Amino acid sequence: MAGAGTSGGRDSSPAGVLERCRELVRPALVDAVGRLHPWTGEMAAYALGWADTAGQPDPGGSEGKGVRQALAVLGAEAVGADGADAVPGAVAVELVHTFSLLHDDIMDADTLRRQRPAVWKAYGTGPAVLTGDALLAQAVASLAETQGRHTAAAVRLLCRTLNALVSGQAQDLRFEHRPWSGPGAVAPEQYRSMAEHKTGSLLGCAIALGAVLGGAPDRTVTALDRAGRHLGLAFQAVDDILGIWGDPAVTGKPVHADLRQGKKTYPVLAALAGDSRAARELGALLDSGRTDGGTAEHIAALVDEAGGRSATRDEARRHLETARRALGEAPLRHTAARELDALFTHLLDRTW
Amino acid sequence: MAGAGTSGGRDSSPAGVLERCRELVRPALVDAVGRLHPWTGEMAAYALGWADTAGQPDPGGSEGKGVRQALAVLGAEAVGADGADAVPGAVAVELVHTFSLLHDDIMDADTLRRQRPAVWKAYGTGPAVLTGDALLAQAVASLAETQGRHTAAAVRLLCRTLNALVSGQAQDLRFEHRPWSGPGAVAPEQYRSMAEHKTGSLLGCAIALGAVLGGAPDRTVTALDRAGRHLGLAFQAVDDILGIWGDPAVTGKPVHADLRQGKKTYPVLAALAGDSRAARELGALLDSGRTDGGTAEHIAALVDEAGGRSATRDEARRHLETARRALGEAPLRHTAARELDALFTHLLDRTW
Repeated sequence: MAGAGTSGGRDSSPAGVLERCRELVRPALVDAVGRLHPWTGEMAAYALGWADTAGQPDPGGSEGKGVRQALAVLGAEAVGADGADAVPGAVAVELVHTFSLLHDDIMDADTLRRQRPAVWKAYGTGPAVLTGDALLAQAVASLAETQGRHTAAAVRLLCRTLNALVSGQAQDLRFEHRPWSGPGAVAPEQYRSMAEHKTGSLLGCAIALGAVLGGAPDRTVTALDRAGRHLGLAFQAVDDILGIWGDPAVTGKPVHADLRQGKKTYPVLAALAGDSRAARELGALLDSGRTDGGTAEHIAALVDEAGGRSATRDEARRHLETARRALGEAPLRHTAARELDALFTHLLDRTW
Repeated sequence: MAGAGTSGGRDSSPAGVLERCRELVRPALVDAVGRLHPWTGEMAAYALGWADTAGQPDPGGSEGKGVRQALAVLGAEAVGADGADAVPGAVAVELVHTFSLLHDDIMDADTLRRQRPAVWKAYGTGPAVLTGDALLAQAVASLAETQGRHTAAAVRLLCRTLNALVSGQAQDLRFEHRPWSGPGAVAPEQYRSMAEHKTGSLLGCAIALGAVLGGAPDRTVTALDRAGRHLGLAFQAVDDILGIWGDPAVTGKPVHADLRQGKKTYPVLAALAGDSRAARELGALLDSGRTDGGTAEHIAALVDEAGGRSATRDEARRHLETARRALGEAPLRHTAARELDALFTHLLDRTW
């Protein structure tokens, strides 16, 4: 049985799905950015990868894949609605995602984003703060202005997600002030809570918003939200592996980037939670505060030896399985559910 | 005839009204801030003047007057509703106001706020960005979660206001890059548009939100919104006068502060719009870019001589009159309308 809104010629591959959703959402996204003050609109277009700093179309192709907008569209289709019903939600989650990258880069002092200077590096901190604010305001406004019976529920969901996102960023920033080991160290469960807020909540919101705007019952919305959250946790685990062992040519970050920055990520925390010789050496080394190039390589080896890499792989696999099971348990239209499932797997299909 | 929700013993003086409204709103405001992550909550309490940087109650009494929450409460009472109906709107506008001060201080590099270090000076730029985000998200979320028939309209109004606020800040920041005179100079009308977005929109929103939550018809809401906007324009004009000629002991800013910072405020723009000898000398001096202490004093004298101070006084009086007339034209309950009118006048009752 074909799902709603599908046709015989539909390209159900993840790349095809992502492209179809980007094309469906783009006019409304362009319109929302076009309603900003021209200056913040220009910085927003840069942040979205649509233009370079001269306002010209960016041939570098640094536009994101549009994962969140696709999840919103598929969320609506999966509950039997037209993908177009999800467009206001898709616009909102893309704008919120762009806002959070913009402000997080300021807070984390990250200078590069998608191989280009971060907005605060390209335009200055003040203008980057303002552009993030403009995107956040426009995200909620564009959803709140949507005509329809489900708007109020959608706005409430988006607002809860915004609170969770900001809270996750606060948790993450506070981890910097915690010791690596001993009392006060970050437990893996605390890391998971941070990642669920910071990464999982917006992915869950994306699918759930599509379902809400598509008129789905609460139980289905909750199942889809849960699926997205676990997808986010799996995604974050893979990101953490790549932050240590990823190929700089692919990640766009220096080798061992997260270790050099002293970031408390899951592989390190999982390694430290063990009691092997490697775990103890790792703890002592981290407590010493040395994280230069040579030490970072040794730390990476110790994290691996103490089981941090394999524990993180298990964490990613477990959350991906939970996410797929949550999809399987909801009463969804076949085609969209299959596309969601394939997209989930595709998003984690990187070398880790 | 007494207005709804009034009693014989009611203190209708502006100070009494402000205090009554702060007490009515405080529990919900404390509750909203209490739902933030503890760390951002601590910074929010500092920004609101409730605590010092050690988290202890601040004996300095640097809490704001709570003008916006009072306008929201009176907005509801003026349309015959209970002031309590306006509380979710009052909380939202206070949180939005605090968000905008926090982020604007970062963008404007202002180090002092209410005689204390600005949040970014006290806690760092990243944490200040995050706290602003948390306040903005919580403002919309707390309003969106309100039960009631008028919530959706209230959320739409708040979102439109957020867009206007951010847009006004963008206009203001762009003024820095414009010449003082000649083609491309900022015209007084452009300054007025900026001030209406940046200051007027939130004051208009405050009264209008109260009226919306109190179930007022659109025409009344529009009149109250208009009254608040003109109040904001009058307030900004007075602020501009104080930014040049205000007593440092009262304003908490150095003498001629706005001139030293090279800010394009109404008195200067109005002076430059003239064709007197003083206006021409002023233009030449500003174009030379010298704004040290001695020059600032001379500039202030030239602005005065070229009519900038009196034009700004006229501007303030005109907008206050328009605001009061807008109140008078709406069908409002007598007591609350009288209190609003007295509060409007009180807010401009500073030495200018």
